[in-house]
This record gives sequence, C-alpha cells and structure tokens, in this order.
Amino acid sequence: MIAITLPDGSVKKFDAGVTPMDVAKSISEGLARNVISASFNNETVETNTPLNQDGSLVLYTWRNDEGKKAFWHSSAHILAQALEQLYPGIKLTIGPAIENGFYYDVDFGTETISEKDLPAIEKKMLEIARGKHEFHMREATKAEALDFYKKQGNEYKVELIENLEDGTITFCDHDTFTDLCRGGHVPNTEIVKAIKLMSIAGAYWRGDENNKQLTRIYGVSFPKQKELTEYLALLEEAKKRDHRKLGKELDLFTFSQKVGQGLPLWLPKGAALRERLENFLKKAQKKAGYEMVISPHIGQKELYVTSGHYAKYGEDSFQPIHTPSEDEEFLLKPMNCPHHCEMYRSRPWSYKDLPKRFAEFGTVYRYEQSGELHGLTRVRGFTQDDAHIFCTPDQLDEEFKNVIDLVLYVFGSLGFENFTTQVSLRDMEKPEKYIGNAENWEKAENAILSAVQDKGLDYVVEYGEAAFYGPKLDFMVKDALGRSWQLGTIQVDYNLPERFELEYKGSDNEMHRPIMIHRAPFGSMERFVAILLEHTGGNFPLWLMPEQVGILSLSEKYEKYAQKVLNLLENDEIRALVDNRNETIGKKIREAEMNKLPYMLIIGEQEEKDGTVSVRKHSEGDLGSMSVEAFSKLVNEEIKKNSVEFNV
Amino acid sequence: MIAITLPDGSVKKFDAGVTPMDVAKSISEGLARNVISASFNNETVETNTPLNQDGSLVLYTWRNDEGKKAFWHSSAHILAQALEQLYPGIKLTIGPAIENGFYYDVDFGTETISEKDLPAIEKKMLEIARGKHEFHMREATKAEALDFYKKQGNEYKVELIENLEDGTITFCDHDTFTDLCRGGHVPNTEIVKAIKLMSIAGAYWRGDENNKQLTRIYGVSFPKQKELTEYLALLEEAKKRDHRKLGKELDLFTFSQKVGQGLPLWLPKGAALRERLENFLKKAQKKAGYEMVISPHIGQKELYVTSGHYAKYGEDSFQPIHTPSEDEEFLLKPMNCPHHCEMYRSRPWSYKDLPKRFAEFGTVYRYEQSGELHGLTRVRGFTQDDAHIFCTPDQLDEEFKNVIDLVLYVFGSLGFENFTTQVSLRDMEKPEKYIGNAENWEKAENAILSAVQDKGLDYVVEYGEAAFYGPKLDFMVKDALGRSWQLGTIQVDYNLPERFELEYKGSDNEMHRPIMIHRAPFGSMERFVAILLEHTGGNFPLWLMPEQVGILSLSEKYEKYAQKVLNLLENDEIRALVDNRNETIGKKIREAEMNKLPYMLIIGEQEEKDGTVSVRKHSEGDLGSMSVEAFSKLVNEEIKKNSVEFNV
Repeated sequence: MIAITLPDGSVKKFDAGVTPMDVAKSISEGLARNVISASFNNETVETNTPLNQDGSLVLYTWRNDEGKKAFWHSSAHILAQALEQLYPGIKLTIGPAIENGFYYDVDFGTETISEKDLPAIEKKMLEIARGKHEFHMREATKAEALDFYKKQGNEYKVELIENLEDGTITFCDHDTFTDLCRGGHVPNTEIVKAIKLMSIAGAYWRGDENNKQLTRIYGVSFPKQKELTEYLALLEEAKKRDHRKLGKELDLFTFSQKVGQGLPLWLPKGAALRERLENFLKKAQKKAGYEMVISPHIGQKELYVTSGHYAKYGEDSFQPIHTPSEDEEFLLKPMNCPHHCEMYRSRPWSYKDLPKRFAEFGTVYRYEQSGELHGLTRVRGFTQDDAHIFCTPDQLDEEFKNVIDLVLYVFGSLGFENFTTQVSLRDMEKPEKYIGNAENWEKAENAILSAVQDKGLDYVVEYGEAAFYGPKLDFMVKDALGRSWQLGTIQVDYNLPERFELEYKGSDNEMHRPIMIHRAPFGSMERFVAILLEHTGGNFPLWLMPEQVGILSLSEKYEKYAQKVLNLLENDEIRALVDNRNETIGKKIREAEMNKLPYMLIIGEQEEKDGTVSVRKHSEGDLGSMSVEAFSKLVNEEIKKNSVEFNV
Repeated sequence: MIAITLPDGSVKKFDAGVTPMDVAKSISEGLARNVISASFNNETVETNTPLNQDGSLVLYTWRNDEGKKAFWHSSAHILAQALEQLYPGIKLTIGPAIENGFYYDVDFGTETISEKDLPAIEKKMLEIARGKHEFHMREATKAEALDFYKKQGNEYKVELIENLEDGTITFCDHDTFTDLCRGGHVPNTEIVKAIKLMSIAGAYWRGDENNKQLTRIYGVSFPKQKELTEYLALLEEAKKRDHRKLGKELDLFTFSQKVGQGLPLWLPKGAALRERLENFLKKAQKKAGYEMVISPHIGQKELYVTSGHYAKYGEDSFQPIHTPSEDEEFLLKPMNCPHHCEMYRSRPWSYKDLPKRFAEFGTVYRYEQSGELHGLTRVRGFTQDDAHIFCTPDQLDEEFKNVIDLVLYVFGSLGFENFTTQVSLRDMEKPEKYIGNAENWEKAENAILSAVQDKGLDYVVEYGEAAFYGPKLDFMVKDALGRSWQLGTIQVDYNLPERFELEYKGSDNEMHRPIMIHRAPFGSMERFVAILLEHTGGNFPLWLMPEQVGILSLSEKYEKYAQKVLNLLENDEIRALVDNRNETIGKKIREAEMNKLPYMLIIGEQEEKDGTVSVRKHSEGDLGSMSVEAFSKLVNEEIKKNSVEFNV
C-alpha cells in the first residue's frame, strides 16, 4: 500500500501501481472525465503512470496551465504523426507546447508546404484524434534510441539523443507513431476535439542562423469546438484592438527610426488624451493630499550609487553621460525615487509635517533590447504616474490603505472592474538578493498583507517576486478580451530612507527614519493608454474621448451653421469637429463611426431653420432631433454620470 | 581743412587740429557740456585729441555705454592716484572699466587694507576729482616707459610694457599722476561727482593662481550724487529680490549636489506655480490653434547629425549615451525641433492642413561649465515653452505676426510692460557661419522685419547675431529695477525643413517645403520664473500666487471656523492656508506679510459669531470685516480684472 497526499492535504491509501487516473476515479467519475494530466512529487507524470511510492499527487484539468500544456504537447504529437503520414520521409525535430498552443519544427527535405496545405493536415490530425489512441511512455537505452533514428536518417533526433544521458531517455507511443519525449500527455487522442493550424514560419535548427532552416507549423487545439471558435473570434477582435493599429488609426502616437526605437512620440490627439488622464489623476491626488513636484531626467552617477541602483542595474542600463569637461558623469533616470529623496532632504521635517506625498508624472528611461520592444507596452522611455509617500511607522497602515482606495478609484473610473492582486514577498531562501535588514522586511510585508485583507481584495502571495528594495502589491486587471495585464503597483520601502539618511524629528524630539511608499496607479502612461485602447477598442469613456462630437453637414452650404453649433458646444467644454467636406452624408457617418466619434450631429436645411441638430450615437444610431442646448446638456450629463469624484 | 562726418551723416569742415570737444561746441554748448568721450574712425580718442584727417566722429555722453566706459576708466585713474597718495610705495597693475563700475588691482606690499579703509580712499578720490584735472595722453618710447616703472620698482607694469611694441606705448597724465594707458577718458576729473568703493577682493596677477595675489578694489562712480544713491538703493532691492533667495524663502525650488549642479528640483509650491504659468500659456495657445505634443528627452545621434546640431555643438555638449549592447548612441536632447520635425514626417500633409502648430513644454539639457551656472537663470536642464509652426511661404507673414501677438499677450498678462526687441540677422561677411542658402535667408529676414514694422515694435537690428539655422526676433524686457532680460524668442527656419526633407502637397499637386517658425514666449520656465521673481519680488499677480489667502486665527479655539472658511474659499477655487498655531496674531500677520500672502483673514469670536472675516491686504492693511462670500467675490473679481483672455 502507498499513501497519496492530495492538494487539499487529505491522504489516501492505495495499492502500489495505482495510476493518477485511478486516483481520480476514486474521487469522482466527473473528475476522472476531466483529468488530462498530473504531477507526482512535483514531477510531470502520465495519467496512466503506475505510482509505486508515497507522495503528493496533483491532478490537472483543462482549466489549469499544466493541463493545457499536456493538451497542447499531445496535440504536437498528433501533428507530427499527421505530417509523417502526409509527407513520408520528412525529418521531425522538436515540438513543444507554448503559451497559446504548440508548434513542430520539421525538415521537409525537398518538399515545400504553404498555408494552403494546412486544412488537409488539420483534417488528418482530427482523423487520428478520433481514433482514441492512448499515449504510452516507455524507457529506451541510448543505443536503442540512436538506432531508431539513425535508421530513419534523422540527424536532428540523433543529435538530441547524443546530448542525453543513458538511462534518462524515454519514447512516447500512440497509434503507429513514436517520438522521443519526456512525457506529460493527455490520456488519449480523442480528448483533442478541435484543431486549428495557425501559421507557417521559418526557424533555424536550435535557433542558430548558421544551421539549416526548418519549417515551423504553429497550431492550437481545444477540448471543444466552441472553445476554438471563441478563441479565433477573440484573436480577430484582439487584432482589431491592437493598440499599435488603433494608435495609428486614431492618430495618437508614432515612432521614428531616427528618434530611436521604443521612444514614443505623442501626436496631438494622443498628448491630449494623456493630459486628460493626467488631469483626472491629479485631481484625485490633490484631494488625497499629494503635492506635485518636478525633477530633472538625469542625475549624477553618485545619486544612483547612493540609491543602490547603480550597483544593481548599472551595467545593463543606458551608459553614463560624460561632460565635455569637468569629468562629471550623469545617468538617465531609471526611476524618480532618488530625486524625490533629495527633495525630502532639502529641509528638516517634524513628525507633524508627515505624511509628505510627492507626486510627479516623471519620465524615466530604461534600456530594453530592441527585440523586446512592443508598441507602447514595452518601451525605452515612459512616464510613470509616480508618487512617494514619506510617513512615520504609525502612518504606514493607513497610508497604504489610502493608496489602495486611490488605485481602486482609478480602475473603477476607467472601466477595469475585473482585477486581482499579487502580494510579492521575499524569497526567504535567497536573502542576498535583497537590500535591507530582515526585521524591516517583515514589518513592510505585514503592512501590505494587513491592508489587502482589510480592503477585502482578491490576492495571491508570491514569494521571491519582491523588488530588491522592498515588498510590493501589484494589480492585475482583466481586459474586455479576458487578457490579464499588470497595472498599478504599490511598494513599501524601508531601504531608500536608510541609504539617503532621511529623517524627521519625532514627538520625542529624537530623529527618526521615515518609511517610503512608492506607488503608480496607472503604472506608466504609455502602458496604460495601450491597455485602455485594447480594453475599449478605442471607445473610451466619453469624458476621455479625443473628440466627442462630429458635426456632419449635409452640404457645404451649412458651413456657417456648423460653425455656430461648434462654438456653442465649445462654450460648454465639449470637444467637437466639423466635417464640411463635399462628401455624401453616408460616407461622413461611416468615417465618423470608424473614428469612434461617440456622437454625430447631422445638420441641413431643416436643422439650420429650427436651430436644432439630428443626433446619432456611435454604434447605437438615431436619437432624433433636438436643440443644441438640449444635446449639450445630454452630453454633459452622460459625462457627469460616468465620472465620479474621488472622495477621501 | 578736414571733413568730419557725424553719425547723422552730415559732414562739417574744420581746421586740422580740431578736437572732438571743439566739434561738440560747434554743434551746441549743451552737447559740449555733456560730451565725455569720443571715437574717431572707430577708434577711441580723447575729447582733447587733435584730429588731423578726414573721418567719422562719434561723441558720447553718460547715456552711452562708451561714455560710461570712459567715465569709469577715468575713475580708475583717480582711484590709483588716491591709493598712491595714501599708501606710498604700492605697486599699481591694471585698472579697467567693467560692466557696472571699475576696479584696480594693486600690490600693497606688506600693507593690508580692509573694507573699513574704503571711506578714506573715497574721500581722497573726491578731493582729487574736485581739482578739475584734465587728462592728457602722450606717447612714450618703450625705453622711456620701462625706465619710468623700473625706477618705481614696479615689475608688473614693466612686464606689461615688455609685451608691447615700441611706438604703440602711451601714458596718461592728470594732476601729479601718470599711468600706462591706451586712452579713453572724460575731459577732466571734476565730471566725476559721486564715488562709492564697493568691495575688496583677492585677484591673482594676470588671473593665474601661480602668480602673486593682488588686492582688487571695486568701485562705481556717477556724474551726480542722486544717481549713486539710486544705484545703491537698486542694488539693495536687487539683493532682496534675488530669485535664489526668494526661491528658498518661498519654498519654490532647490538644488542637490547629488542630483547635480544646474539641475533644479521644483518643490510643491514651485511646481504648482509653474503649472499655473503653463496652463495660462496652454489656454492662450489653444485659442491660437496650437496643438500640444510630447516627445522623449533623448534622440539617436543620427537625429542630430541630420539636424546639423551634432556637427555644430556635439563636442561641447553632454556626450553620447551608449547602450549596453546593440551599439546604439543617443544624445540628451538640446532642443525639441528635431523631434517635432519627425512628428511632422509621420504622415503626409496637404497645404489645406497647414499651418500645423506643435507645442510642447519640452525639457532640454545643455552642458554649461559649473562656473557659469547661476540659480534658475543659467542651468543645465530647462523646460522650453516651445512650439514649431510648419507653414507655407504664403502664411509666414501672418503666422509671424500672430506669434508676436501671443508674446505681447504673455508679457502684458505678467506685468512686463517695458520691452524692446532685437532683430538678429546674418553677418553678411561670414556666410560660412550659417547653414542654408542666401536666398532663403533673405526671405526669412524680410519676413521678420516686415512683422516688427507692421506691429510697430521698438526694435534694433543686430547683424551677426542670428542663430546658425536662421534669423530671429528676441524680446528684451525691463524689470521693475530697470534691468534688461532677454525673454521670448521667435525664429524663422528655412533650414531644418530642408534637412529633414519635410513636405506638403500644394494646390498645384506638387510637393513643397514648409517653413518652420520656432518660438518660446517665456523662453524657459526656469529663467522666466527667476525673472518674474526678481521683477515682482515674489508679489506675483494674484492669479499666480502659490497661496492667495492666509486664515489667521486669534486662538486655537477657532480651528473649526477656520476650517469652514477654508472650505468655502476652496469651493470657489481660492488657494488658502490656515495658521492656527498657538502664536500671537501680531506674529502671524508679520509672517504672512513676509511670505507675501496677498490677503490675510483674521478670525476670532466676533467673526465666528457673525460668519464674517476681518480682511487685511498685503502691504496695504485693514479692509474691514465682511462675509466670506463677499470676500470670495472680491478675490475672484480682482483675479478676473487682471487676467485678460487671449483673443485671436
């Protein structure tokens, strides 16, 4: 008999040789139907692997990342089998599961295949899947393994096996197909019900451009056809909402090869959008007692030696700026905190002055390899909606909670209702990774845990994910497409106050160290705007829209009236534009819809005569005719309804 | 007979040997009384120098810089004579006129003098001056000159003479005193009526710290006692208004040795002041059709190679920033124009889209030697209120005039009513200094001249003062102390559009080059705030004040009412603070006056009972009691009265 410990801590006894699937069945038939992979004592096993010792067993379903990995890895085997059947003589190399699906790299020899061949391959794969073939792992000696592939003339697998140690080599068989494999499969092929091969790409053997180029086939698969359909629709929608595409269409930002990659240039509409977001946060921050400051974008190397950033990141950062004489060295600032510490140091403080909250929309520069750059989400220069709170230990809990309130207000106002939080703590086993003493770390970690519990947030704790200078709380929001984004961060820091020797005079007349909180609800303006674009598809809340109203004239004759309507709206702080081109009203409406204009006002003879406008709402249609005043009121009421004030 | 040409172009005949003073007398006795120096054929002459050939003569009075120079140079002779009389055996070295006065560097041997000796020296100088001694220049051979000073044992003058060429050496005699001198004196010593020796400093012979340290005595002198009195009062006031002093007192900005010299850190009150100024300009710019953009603070070296800045300034600038891999080179941006050019290039334009006006509060970085740095007026990082207008040649005149209107609006709103302008054109004899072709330069220069004439501005033309990329119009404002500051610049640029190959499609369907206008009404936020501080002594226009109202309670008992008054004022957008300390009302008022608070509200039992406030105005005193609402109306009316809207 062996003892199997389950994730809930319960322990069950079984005969030796029991399989994970047997265990699942012993729990419930329903679970057994859904189990697709397993791990035993933290190692991947098959659902049919006999277990012969005591240990911890985790059973995975499609809902777990581990389950998906087994599912897609198994699908790669099916793809390989299908390819061998359709293209005899090809040489298989490697075929892993990836984030969204799987791929297989294949040497097709003299054969070439293209995207139009994919449907036939998919069909063959589904045929195989329907055969309900079980996956079976077996061990092989190095000699047997080499022999198997040498006979096939597959030098790739031979090379892989040559780098493996005898005694660790395993094969996986299903149906007529065999592959060199470490394991981790679904019970049988029939579980794979829906398959889509996405694309074909070139890939060098082992990623080395001196090697032969292979053909990589990307695919994705699901347990249900419906899930595949939804996934493809989501992909289509995500493509439409790609912030790089929308940013260009809506004229928000651009990049220039000459200015440099990863350095966004905000065009007028984008800069105005950013300003509205900044003003929105400024207003809430003012209520919450923050004060804006402004600091330069460079600092002497000495500043970052003091802060510890130079020792930690210096080599991988933008390199120092030398002066033409006087031998000075400056660095582009990678963060605003050292500057704010120096501001704090510019005068003495008493405990009565604290908390002091310095806020800045501070643009920072961090080197990223060009291959890592992506639109506005991964850039080399970005503006943090940064603030640093200097407070006494007594104030930490309350300040931390106040920051959480502010972050939640920001998310709520911008329509991110679905979020989770992650508390990132030390890796207790690697104390050398962190600056500062253990006692301070513990205090800070407890303050965060107490705050998230008090605010009733949905949180997970991740050990080892803390910044080197302190623990933190990160907010992960889900966008309209269900994708997770990291947004907003709050970090406690006992370390910089120490390094900068920050002080305040306590009620005991002694000098004490303040505690620092770093926080950024948006995270960065660049990343936030990108996520907001993908979340809303460019249909921002009305108060945020670059242009709220389009005035579309039926003909050029009504230019004067169009201008009058524009002036009336502008007097009421409504952002409008006039489309008085010599085009049909149909074309004007189509373009206005495409440009995401929330409201369209159609004006012609009747409207001019009556002093009215015919109102159309974006993606909703006709709202009828009304006076300009009534329309203006309607817009301002909608704005008011959707922009709640921050209350401290 | 010789022909003398006067500055107005008139030519007069005189006997050879006529002196400049004779010529002055021939024009008018009044002029003769005021003439204190002269130049003949662009060389400095004495007023008693006989003129023996045809030539151009300029006569200078105290009102000319040349006149002041002769006045102060002559005063240095008087100082030297006084010192010789009071301290026999001292060795004189050099004694030039400087910007505000003169100095003499003296080797006092074993003698030491201090500031308390200055009044006695001044007294002796005035005695000499009253002697009405004439200054007489005479030539000397090198041998005679050396002999004269060798006898005195004055190795300094000997060293000076050894470096002079025989035949070019002159002495100046007055009374019993003789000095080695190139000339340029007032007619006689009696013209110097008021003298003040300002300070004593150490100075190395020839500015070389390996040489002996001499004693430098600084002085200033005037033709009238009243002028000296006014000058000293002005100095006193300027010291009080020094923006570095006020910036510290009013908590506006600070510097940190660790962040780096010349890199201002804007503290909360300073950042808020700057934001108000920026918002003020943004509002006017919006009306004038500008659009805000945002660009990064670095750009690839390539960007500045294209713009021409790298070739021109590269070596003297902050040096390139290297990336840790990928071999890229970036520069801190010294100006925003190349970035804006790249934004313009991000899409095609038609003539119908122009003018396009990109505005940015863009922070730029320029290396200055640390010795050149001064508060906020000379820094290494500053924020330009920058904008670039891209327009067609047809639009240039009007755009230039519109910019002038905007600049005048800014100056008017901030109380700078006294200004002149300078049109800076090419030095026609040094075409190699400038980028771009002569035809384009001429067009641009004419556009500026036409605009200043059309706007009726008071202007001077300076040849050779243009930027390397184009001619410009600079605004010089006089502050409340009569000092001139360069503020605001407008520059036409035919060059960058060429270098960046900017284009638009004309009505002829052909591609054309737009013209660029660079402009900055404030110049830079740092410099402007410094000048505004010195101009107003910190008593800004009410709308700009960091805090507009201080609520001073008679005792801590009235805290609740003080808070109520604060809330009422804040609801009306009035910036107020509460002083509820346990201090006397006298002390609270004194401190509020010192902190430049425009209004003080005193509250006590009576006020709380009546719901009123007792109002005091800064430096004016009691305005009586009124309701909070009435006071709030009074403040907002004062603000409204003094902040005119910009009208296009």
